[in-house]
Amino acid sequence: MVYLVGAGPGDIELFTLKAINILKKADVILYDALVNPEFTIFCKKDSIRINVGKRKGKHLKNQEEINNLLVKYAKEKEIVVRLKGGTPFVFGRGYEEVKALKKIGITPIVISGVSSTTSVPESFMIPSIDRSFSDSYRTITGHDLTIFNEIITSYHERENLIIMMGAYKAKEIVQSLLKKGFPKTTPIAYLSKGTTLEQQCIILTLEDVYNKNEEFFLQLRELTPVITFVGKTINALKYQIQQEV
Amino acid sequence: MVYLVGAGPGDIELFTLKAINILKKADVILYDALVNPEFTIFCKKDSIRINVGKRKGKHLKNQEEINNLLVKYAKEKEIVVRLKGGTPFVFGRGYEEVKALKKIGITPIVISGVSSTTSVPESFMIPSIDRSFSDSYRTITGHDLTIFNEIITSYHERENLIIMMGAYKAKEIVQSLLKKGFPKTTPIAYLSKGTTLEQQCIILTLEDVYNKNEEFFLQLRELTPVITFVGKTINALKYQIQQEV
Repeated sequence: MVYLVGAGPGDIELFTLKAINILKKADVILYDALVNPEFTIFCKKDSIRINVGKRKGKHLKNQEEINNLLVKYAKEKEIVVRLKGGTPFVFGRGYEEVKALKKIGITPIVISGVSSTTSVPESFMIPSIDRSFSDSYRTITGHDLTIFNEIITSYHERENLIIMMGAYKAKEIVQSLLKKGFPKTTPIAYLSKGTTLEQQCIILTLEDVYNKNEEFFLQLRELTPVITFVGKTINALKYQIQQEV
Repeated sequence: MVYLVGAGPGDIELFTLKAINILKKADVILYDALVNPEFTIFCKKDSIRINVGKRKGKHLKNQEEINNLLVKYAKEKEIVVRLKGGTPFVFGRGYEEVKALKKIGITPIVISGVSSTTSVPESFMIPSIDRSFSDSYRTITGHDLTIFNEIITSYHERENLIIMMGAYKAKEIVQSLLKKGFPKTTPIAYLSKGTTLEQQCIILTLEDVYNKNEEFFLQLRELTPVITFVGKTINALKYQIQQEV
């Protein structure tokens, strides 16, 4: 059997019981760079563990190599785990892996994890959605500005934006939001390494970011993985004191 | 200490280690109706457990009563857990509870859970987002059509919609999406009781639903809690055979 398993956002205690139970039995674990490396405490001693992740654009394995490894071990071993940051089907390329496995007649089992998209804001006391402020939140990639601009066409005060992989395009994203009618005073938060001991948060307004110099944006890139959160609930609980890079 | 704890989508094994560790120590647990009642296996024998949930519109306790109970026990007991379906800050009214606690000088600790919004689609092999098909997904409440219509202004083929609490307005939602330019062939899935043994899924197109009679919509209501998923990734893995109510 092959399992696509979510490892959650970083905190080792945010593994689910189901993930732990399958790791205990796994013969092979293919894991991503963003998975907390302490996951090995749950594993059999003689299990094979392979880091297939990427960091800062550098892939240890490309997707085709990962698919091939999955297929190889699926044939050879009893229990194979593909361990992914967050949850498998949210920005996880799980689809491509399932497709590769289906070609050899295997349908993997998906074990959901705690998604970073909602738990990282929570670790800074920022609700993704709360009826006092919002009725919707939109989770979108920030790495392709053309698509970003096509999808985000207007502002609604009762919707939050959660932008993944947006740190490298932070300036352009803010310029774009202002152009689409987002008020200058809209709060924006850069959430770095949420749920871990190194977590930090920068809370500003769109106008503040618009006026930042290049140094700010360079330093922001150093904080990846960063989730960019835009919307009123940022200040709802005023948990975090405003920090400047 | 007071903890706002996510209980995940239903499957008892989708509790996190962190949730289980705090339940072991909790003196009082205030839990929602959608929380798997088996959670008590993790609790101290002499803990106080109070169901404060609502089902089908009927509240056992209203939000003010819940806040008052939280405040009362926060003063009286060592470890108080507010156990919520999914994760605390996604449709959870966590904000109101935190505010009530802050008034008496207590800042609760948030323990994220597996959100139903992404794990229920996963339990039917439906990716919320996968780069082969999409760059965005929008999670929105379906219970207020005015707000829904204000927020959803247009269609983009690379965005999925995840509509919570939309079963009672299923007909109006589909009519509205078609009016906004969603293609008639857009797949729509009604996901009921995901991650549990009773889970079931109805996959149709917007046009199919548009042409349904009243009986369909009445039967759909019986399936609550239902998540309505709209978008191309529904058929990406063709996991589920099309079912008719």
